[in-house]
Formats: sequence, structure tokens, C-alpha cells
Amino acid sequence: MRVYNFSAGPSMLPEEVLKQAQAEFLDCGGSGMSVTEMSHRSKVYDAIIKEAEADLRKLMNIPDDYYVLFVQGGASMQFEAIPLNMLVKGKADYLVTGNFAKKAYKEGIKYGDMKAAASSEEATFTYIPKVTRKDFREDIDYVHYTANNTIFGTHFNYVPDAPAPLVSDMSSCILSETVDVSKFGVIYAGAQKNIAPAGVTIVIVRKDLCENPMPICPTMLKWSTQAENGSMYNTPPCFSIYMAGLVFKWLLKLGGTDAINKINVEKAKLLYDFIDNSKFYTNNVAKEDRSIMNVPFVAPNDDLNAKFVKEAAAEGLVTLKGHRLVGGMRASIYNAMPIEGVKKLVEFMKKFELENK
Amino acid sequence: MRVYNFSAGPSMLPEEVLKQAQAEFLDCGGSGMSVTEMSHRSKVYDAIIKEAEADLRKLMNIPDDYYVLFVQGGASMQFEAIPLNMLVKGKADYLVTGNFAKKAYKEGIKYGDMKAAASSEEATFTYIPKVTRKDFREDIDYVHYTANNTIFGTHFNYVPDAPAPLVSDMSSCILSETVDVSKFGVIYAGAQKNIAPAGVTIVIVRKDLCENPMPICPTMLKWSTQAENGSMYNTPPCFSIYMAGLVFKWLLKLGGTDAINKINVEKAKLLYDFIDNSKFYTNNVAKEDRSIMNVPFVAPNDDLNAKFVKEAAAEGLVTLKGHRLVGGMRASIYNAMPIEGVKKLVEFMKKFELENK
Repeated sequence: MRVYNFSAGPSMLPEEVLKQAQAEFLDCGGSGMSVTEMSHRSKVYDAIIKEAEADLRKLMNIPDDYYVLFVQGGASMQFEAIPLNMLVKGKADYLVTGNFAKKAYKEGIKYGDMKAAASSEEATFTYIPKVTRKDFREDIDYVHYTANNTIFGTHFNYVPDAPAPLVSDMSSCILSETVDVSKFGVIYAGAQKNIAPAGVTIVIVRKDLCENPMPICPTMLKWSTQAENGSMYNTPPCFSIYMAGLVFKWLLKLGGTDAINKINVEKAKLLYDFIDNSKFYTNNVAKEDRSIMNVPFVAPNDDLNAKFVKEAAAEGLVTLKGHRLVGGMRASIYNAMPIEGVKKLVEFMKKFELENK
Repeated sequence: MRVYNFSAGPSMLPEEVLKQAQAEFLDCGGSGMSVTEMSHRSKVYDAIIKEAEADLRKLMNIPDDYYVLFVQGGASMQFEAIPLNMLVKGKADYLVTGNFAKKAYKEGIKYGDMKAAASSEEATFTYIPKVTRKDFREDIDYVHYTANNTIFGTHFNYVPDAPAPLVSDMSSCILSETVDVSKFGVIYAGAQKNIAPAGVTIVIVRKDLCENPMPICPTMLKWSTQAENGSMYNTPPCFSIYMAGLVFKWLLKLGGTDAINKINVEKAKLLYDFIDNSKFYTNNVAKEDRSIMNVPFVAPNDDLNAKFVKEAAAEGLVTLKGHRLVGGMRASIYNAMPIEGVKKLVEFMKKFELENK
């Protein structure tokens, strides 16, 4: 039985994408071999990676003066690649709105004069600070923020106005909504939430921002290295890129980011409305800052939280345990989570409340 | 029709491994989800990565004072991670025996006082220099060499005697033969030749060599970061590690590295014997330095080389084109290439010679 998997990442992939990958796993594109066995320099693979890039450009309407890079190492590697590629004046401002936002900031500090321009840590990251241009220093190389905070279930519902290029970690919300890429210097995302199996990281970067890496920047971390080589300076993570390509085609067929966003909003509304009308479950995130991807909630006590996670799993609603920093439960409802999964979760929540209140 | 794929990497995987992965692609270990969708913190995945490590330790008889790390970025990332983790005195010696050996050396130069202790570049890397301890400087942090040179078809048939820890890039020969790990400080390998789909890199490192990274070493490139976190500092390339695990089990069932080496020697002998007895085909590598993994050869002229590659492909013998630095043909016959593939190639070579001499 296929379960509904509420994992924060790696997480669900569209079932039809998995089935296609399975069907052609031993013979990709009539090549007589698995995509996992194929030279990355072969014609078949070259078409796969080029199409993946073209489809992502279409989905996000990425302007021509941006590179699209497929790299390795996850968002965590970019926490370092960002200062190593972008620091010229040696200063950058960070918005500290969660665990990974803080990690990015801490890695940044090693390389330059970094400032936390705003933080919601004093309130356990339960809201998104509203910043204006005057919150930032003027002579900085960039402003970094995490668009969606996976652990805390918050989301920037506005694009900050900054005096320098915006760098945004969109790992847990990329392709879940329509964004105006031209407002950003860099958008990056680990693939394992909304795009593909873990192992590839997408970096969308304005071309001029690749020109001045710090002298200590390792060759493999320079965006220009990958840009000049079409993400094939060395062997790329071929299978994850192939899977990303299939997911992009699935999204295009579905109608793109506007269409999936409508579904995502509907899914999240089902869950939040139910929680807000319940006296049993609580979500303590500021309403206007709630994520439509990650929905943390708690039952009245820890015993009930543990019981909830266990009994939900028995009904095929799995990986609902909240992050240890927050406790309780977390339902990650990325693009690939069908609305039926959310409905089934809400039904289970009702039943559990009745049985345990 | 499944082809015989002679690609230098990514390259063939054992058909039974591919079939198992395909069969459980939508439901791994009874979890109701694909291994590509599974949280890396889940019990099922935890067992997968731990078993992969345990099986590799068994296959290579890795002593307890070595870490086994699964990292991202390929061997090219390690070209930088090595000096960044190992330079204390600030000096290291390199054996320059091929394209990637030279790349490793060039990356190293950025970080310290590096010396090419020996090189075969003057003879287009057609042999392996025989070095002795006196060829190295005494006050160095390590000696780096590439055990098997994929492009040029050469292989170190001895382990150099060095005054410092040996660091060996075994990307294209790991698990093809039995090695004494205790003779090395570091063994590393991109997975996409003998282990798994591209996207994971194996680093086997003596524990004491992880203790003194350079201050400029990025957190993600520090071996200690991954060692302290069981290769899960951030989300690992889960699918490639899972596939590596299946390949390790396949090798164990087959009898381990001694058993596969016997088959590899037999496969290579078929091909080299035929080439050596032919007046049509040439392999110009010093006989004692020949690789049993990568066999470059040429027909009498470039037109015939091109014709060979094209006609072989039509018969299901694919990706035989040699690297541009060498020209002609190259048959990469890694662990997963069945002996039938090599026999079919030799038969084709005979036929082609008869038709074109």
C-alpha cells in the first residue's frame, strides 16, 4: 500500500513520475541502458539535462541573464558558496528566521562582516519579521533570507526591499508558488523537497554575480566553474537531475506554478482551518506568516503527540513527528502530496480528537 | 535490448541490482514509499546507510581506525578537500600520471607547496613511473596518486613507498582488486564507475587525518563534519548510497574483491591478448602498467576508428569512443561488465579487422 508521507524532506514525489522512472529504469529513451549507467556526455543524457534546464526556465520564467546550475552538496554547501562567490565589499546582512537561516548566517560569519538585520529567534521563530530597506546596511554585498522555514512552518509572504542583491534559500517552497526571479540575485534550493531525490541542488544566479569569487573559493564551489561547463565540470548527479526533469514536465502539464499554488493553498487551508476551529490542536505561528508547505501542530500534551504519530502511521499517514526543536507533529504537504492525503489526515485528526479529548 | 555499455563513467551497473532497484522503486523495504522519498532520518534509511558502510568495510577489510564517509561533489571536490583537510606542514608531493592526477595536483598548488615528484606526461601518460622513497621530500603532509588512470588505461601495479600518508584516487579501480587499506592514509572514489550511480563519493580516511583542517576549509568539505555526523550532516545523496549498498551485496555474494578480480583479469586478458596478437589494433601502454578496467586501443587510422565506433554501436557495443586526449577507442570493462560483453567485443573486433584490413 502506498502511504501518505508527510516527511519534511526527502519527501513524496509524484506517483506518475515514480512510475515512469520505474518503467524506463533499465532502458532510458531507447538507449538500452539505465539512465544511471549513461555517460553524462552522451547524446541521450545531454538532451535530459538541457531539457530539465529549459523546463525549469519555463516554469519559473527565468530571465536570460541568469544561469541555472545543477550542483552537489545541498543548501548547506551553498551557505558557504554564497559568501565565497559574492563577497567583494566583505559585508552582508542576514534575516535569521529559523534553524537553517541561522546556519547560513553562522557559515557566513567565517568569511566576512555579517549582520543579523532581523531575527525572530526570541519568539522561537514563530513569525517572520517585517523588514524595510532601512533595516539593512547600505554598503553590503547581499541580503540573505530563507523564504520558507521548514522546521517552524513560516514563510515570507513578501519579498524584502534590500539595497543589495537578494539571496534566497527556497529549498522548501521552490515551485510551490510563482515568484518573480528578476527580484533576486540568487535563488537556491536543495531538490529533496519539491523537485527530486536528494543529491542535486538548484542555483539560479544572475550572471554578473558569478564574476568575483573570493581567492580562497574552491574551484568546485565557484558558480562560474559550473556556469562555464553547463553544470558538467565533472560528472553531475545524473539521476537526480533526470528525476527533476520528470517533475518539471509533470508541473508543466499540471499548468505551472500558478496552478500548483492554487492546489497548495487549498490543501493548507483544509489543515489550518481545521486546526483553528479545534480546541485540541494548536499551531502557534503568526497567521499571516504561515507556510503552505510545512504545518506544525501539537495535541494537548506530549503523550498524546506520541500516540498521534503512532496511530496515524498505522493508518498510512507517516513521518508526522515534529522536528525536535518544535515537538508535536509536522505535516509537510509539498507539491507532490495529493489533496486526498491532506483530507485523510484531517479525518484522522477529527477521529483522534474525539477519542482522546 | 540491453546493450553492452563500455562507458568510462557513469557506466554499467549489475543487471540484477538494477532489477531489484526497479522492483522496489515504489515500495522500499515494505515502507510504502520509494527510497527516493524517504527521510534520511527514518529507520528504514538508517539501516540502508549503515548496512552499506558495514558491507564496504567487509569487502575492503577496512580497519576500525578509518572512517568511511559518503559525500557529494565527486573526486574533483576531494582534489580540494585533501589539501584543505591534510596540510599542516603545508607541503605535499604528487605523482602526475594522467589527466585527473594532474587536476588534483593543480588544485593542490592553490593551497600549499606542492611538488610533482614524478610524471609521465612527457610520454603522454602511457606508463607509470616507478618511484622509490627517495623521490619524495621528507617533510611533507602526504603523497597523492591516482591508482588507475581512466583516460590513458594505466594502473599502479604497486603501492608507492612514501615518507607520509598515501592518498589515492581509486575512482576507476576501487573494488576491482584487493587492496590493503592500512597502507593508505586516504582512499577516495567517485561512485559512478565501479559502485553506484553518480552523486556519491566514498572517502575512506584514517581517523587522525581528519583532525587538523586548514582554517579556510569550508565546513562542508571538512571530513570531520561528515565523520561526526555519520555522513548525515545534511541530507546525503540517498539514492546513490542505496544503490551502492545493493552493489556491495552483489559483490559479497560473488565472493568479494578476490573473486571479482579474477574475473576482471580474465576479461582484460581476452582483450589485451587479442590486441597484442593483431597487426590491426594497437594499445601503446607499457605492458606492466596496463589497467584491467580501461583498455584504450586504436585502429590503423582515424576514419577506421570512427567507422569502428559507429558499427560497434549498431551491434549493441556502445560508448566505445576514446577520450579526446587519446583518440581511437576505449573499452571500460568495470566490475559490472559481463565477460560475455568482452567476448562479443573481441568477436566484433575480429570481424571488423577482416572487413577493413
